[in-house]
Amino acid sequence: MSSARNLTAALRRARVPRPRLALRPVQFTPVTATARTFTSSSTRTSDSRQIKYTSEAYNLQRNPNFAEISADDVAHFKELLGSQSAVIDGVTTDAADDIEPFNSDWMRKYRGHTRLVLKPQNAQEVSKVLKYCNERKLAVVPQGGNTGLVGGSVPVFDEIVINTSRMNQIRSFDAASGVLVADAGVILETADQYLAEREHLFPLDLGAKGSCHIGGNVSTNAGGLRLLRYGSLHGSVLGLEAVLPDGTIVDALSTLRKNNTGYDLKQLFIGSEGTIGLVTAVSIQCPPRPKAVNVAYFGLESFEQVQQAYLAAKGQLSEILSAFELMDGRSQGLVIESTGNKHPLEGEYPFYCLVETSGSNAEHDMAKLESFLESVMGDGIVADGVLAQDETQFQALWRWREGITESLSHLGGTYKYDVSIPLADLYQLVEDCKARLTEKGFVGDDDSFPVRAVVGYGHMGDSNLHLNVSVRQYNKEVEKAIEPWVYEWIQKRQGSISAEHGLGVAKREFIGYSQNETMVKLMKQLKNLYDPNGIMNPYKYI
Amino acid sequence: MSSARNLTAALRRARVPRPRLALRPVQFTPVTATARTFTSSSTRTSDSRQIKYTSEAYNLQRNPNFAEISADDVAHFKELLGSQSAVIDGVTTDAADDIEPFNSDWMRKYRGHTRLVLKPQNAQEVSKVLKYCNERKLAVVPQGGNTGLVGGSVPVFDEIVINTSRMNQIRSFDAASGVLVADAGVILETADQYLAEREHLFPLDLGAKGSCHIGGNVSTNAGGLRLLRYGSLHGSVLGLEAVLPDGTIVDALSTLRKNNTGYDLKQLFIGSEGTIGLVTAVSIQCPPRPKAVNVAYFGLESFEQVQQAYLAAKGQLSEILSAFELMDGRSQGLVIESTGNKHPLEGEYPFYCLVETSGSNAEHDMAKLESFLESVMGDGIVADGVLAQDETQFQALWRWREGITESLSHLGGTYKYDVSIPLADLYQLVEDCKARLTEKGFVGDDDSFPVRAVVGYGHMGDSNLHLNVSVRQYNKEVEKAIEPWVYEWIQKRQGSISAEHGLGVAKREFIGYSQNETMVKLMKQLKNLYDPNGIMNPYKYI
Repeated sequence: MSSARNLTAALRRARVPRPRLALRPVQFTPVTATARTFTSSSTRTSDSRQIKYTSEAYNLQRNPNFAEISADDVAHFKELLGSQSAVIDGVTTDAADDIEPFNSDWMRKYRGHTRLVLKPQNAQEVSKVLKYCNERKLAVVPQGGNTGLVGGSVPVFDEIVINTSRMNQIRSFDAASGVLVADAGVILETADQYLAEREHLFPLDLGAKGSCHIGGNVSTNAGGLRLLRYGSLHGSVLGLEAVLPDGTIVDALSTLRKNNTGYDLKQLFIGSEGTIGLVTAVSIQCPPRPKAVNVAYFGLESFEQVQQAYLAAKGQLSEILSAFELMDGRSQGLVIESTGNKHPLEGEYPFYCLVETSGSNAEHDMAKLESFLESVMGDGIVADGVLAQDETQFQALWRWREGITESLSHLGGTYKYDVSIPLADLYQLVEDCKARLTEKGFVGDDDSFPVRAVVGYGHMGDSNLHLNVSVRQYNKEVEKAIEPWVYEWIQKRQGSISAEHGLGVAKREFIGYSQNETMVKLMKQLKNLYDPNGIMNPYKYI
Repeated sequence: MSSARNLTAALRRARVPRPRLALRPVQFTPVTATARTFTSSSTRTSDSRQIKYTSEAYNLQRNPNFAEISADDVAHFKELLGSQSAVIDGVTTDAADDIEPFNSDWMRKYRGHTRLVLKPQNAQEVSKVLKYCNERKLAVVPQGGNTGLVGGSVPVFDEIVINTSRMNQIRSFDAASGVLVADAGVILETADQYLAEREHLFPLDLGAKGSCHIGGNVSTNAGGLRLLRYGSLHGSVLGLEAVLPDGTIVDALSTLRKNNTGYDLKQLFIGSEGTIGLVTAVSIQCPPRPKAVNVAYFGLESFEQVQQAYLAAKGQLSEILSAFELMDGRSQGLVIESTGNKHPLEGEYPFYCLVETSGSNAEHDMAKLESFLESVMGDGIVADGVLAQDETQFQALWRWREGITESLSHLGGTYKYDVSIPLADLYQLVEDCKARLTEKGFVGDDDSFPVRAVVGYGHMGDSNLHLNVSVRQYNKEVEKAIEPWVYEWIQKRQGSISAEHGLGVAKREFIGYSQNETMVKLMKQLKNLYDPNGIMNPYKYI
């Protein structure tokens, strides 16, 4: 019996006056893996050659309007960028091994045919590269940490990869205003560590933080774990620097919190996945780092109770609530299977939640949290739970949430659906999808079944579910059983087929399920305005 | 001697252990006026005829490409909108008295020549109106509560006023997600009262809340009093419905917190001041209403100490800080002069601050606030202060901040500059402006001097200053002494010439001080894309 269960009993015995709660942790498995660090493109091995080409998987044809890269082009880029390390040339040399990591993604799901990778060092170099490509009609793919989940940062055919890893300087930070200005290629975790030393916090956090670039985060409008506290990048990004396909440098790197002088053009680059320009630097409002952070992990018997727990957290933890994450029982089972770690709760539950608080006063936060725990455990909403007692346990509990993506990737392929659905219906999608695939005979425990499990987890506080279908290998029949059924299901509930991952290659055809014809038409009009030759990240998005 | 001063003495006597603070209020003047309610266009009298025409004041010429409104046009609109109350016809009838309130602003600074006011009731009617106007090349001005400060919602020549007051329905509210969907013409205070009954809060608050429309708030990207807590509308607005000049209805009224399916087009309507489309409805994320709210009002001896107090508030009040407002001594003197109210502090200080906390636990909030007060008073940062003890005092203290705008308007004209400047330089602009106007012999206490006072106040927490030059009447010589000097001053410090008020007529020529040529070119390109005939709110913005 875990300590949190003892806690419930203690609470029931003595409701008034409430005793000081003795919150004891259960034994945690020692840290064995860092779920937060993805394998980055620069260190991955070239076994990506076994990955199926995106062009074949998605039955795409190369756009004949695009030019083929010539030896002259390569010579031009080498002269332009000067440095040896700025060009990986697979056109005039056999650089296949060096090129391959940039051609595929960490999920081993997308693979392109690029023969040229460029690593410009600043907006001026990006400008010269894009201007040349635009005039020559050479297609390009902006690429940051290449940690995306929809194939948006991987070439499909021979698009030139423009990688931001050499634009990696923090330009400035002002402690009074909390405004950070940094190059697009700064790794999210690096930016956050820099801010931690200055008692501030990057207002975005996500599992791939050890590899992803902040320019990529902004370009894909990443949401992540603490959006419910710190809001979306549309609110926190104060300015940016970007380069349009014709080489125009958009210098909108304002550090002002308020600036109502004309159209807020920078917003167009947030979430447009590199299809109208390449973001080279970002200015962002960073909050003070919380002095106290707590994490609790619960087991619950029903999704109805998960909803009750969320509303209780929203009401009672209020301004200190910084994350409310949902994980279903199957997702946690797969993490156990993949990592061998011991689960923090003794019993098994169909649902688990992770609740994080962040505040400025440890005593007040703990009092609020205890009152919340008393209420949800006393009312029987939560069946069991533990509270992290130190940094190690804090990290260990978070790994049960953040480790799901990587654990799944170790078990085979995953069909990933990142969706927004009104809260009441959030988990029904997982149930319905599982029933559908089971009925078709796809789901089972041994290797004769293509589907290992249908799992659901996500950012409950944002009404954002990650539906994951874990398969032993990618299987067209399974995919056909899910799509477009899943999109129709979401459309009926006015949800979004992409809450935070974006469209990329994976969902480019399905935008109509979440956007009406007028919106799609207006988007195409904008794309055409900024990128009339269509060279920016083609075969994707709209 | 005020009670807060006694408090300081008590704190100094017994720092360790800290006693329970006895916070007693000073005597407040009874409420005599509601500073929060502006005189709305529908109730204002027609003495606006004495206001100078904007076309003359700004030496503007009517664009000859626009058609003149004919009797046929009026007949068309009457048939289209059906209802008698939807059309105020000054073309075929003498409706000058009814029309005039829509032709001028509450500051008596801008005045147009419109002869036709239309009040459509929904997006479909707006669509038909705009489509017709676009085909006929009839210019229009979208108008909400007409509470703007830069002449953006008032016609210049004979533009047709499209007023949103009849689109005034709250469409839906979901307590679980906190998402409100409402028509553009809902008054901000009405929306907030509706939410208050449902334990939620509109994430925007400003002095004009009793009159301004939420559609106007969104169209002008209003900032207001609590942006430092709840963020900008670019983050909190989840969706909107708008009509383009060609009649296209942009249905982007998503209620999802996350939706990464294509370009976030709605962002373009936030802050574009009705120049590319007319917002007809808004979907917005609303936070839970705080259970405890406190307000303290301080007197300080220097701007250096104001900065110290702000950094202390940011660090110590952290997640419960909901406003940090600055008022200089002269601004408070003018409120006394205008209202006759007794000031809450006994001594006079060059600077005053209003600090508000909003949280979920009254006891915790008070403990944080007491600790903050102990620190800023104990360290001699704050010279004197009071803390509101009840709702009446809370409102009374806020009026010393919110009442400035209206008090100034009662004393004559005001040249208003709403600027963003890095925090350290924020107040220097007021000093420099005052020195400049004094040197030129414009400033004095008797009626022979055009300038009554140069005052500064604003949203310290957002680095947003309102520089106001209070004049006995509008005076071209004074204006020439301020402009463009003030804009050059701001440009040198990479500030913004419009933090939250927008460009309107007042600043349309000065955008170049805060935006570079590339940005202005890209904005014009967008304007041309959506409004090729230029009928939407002409003579303004870019």
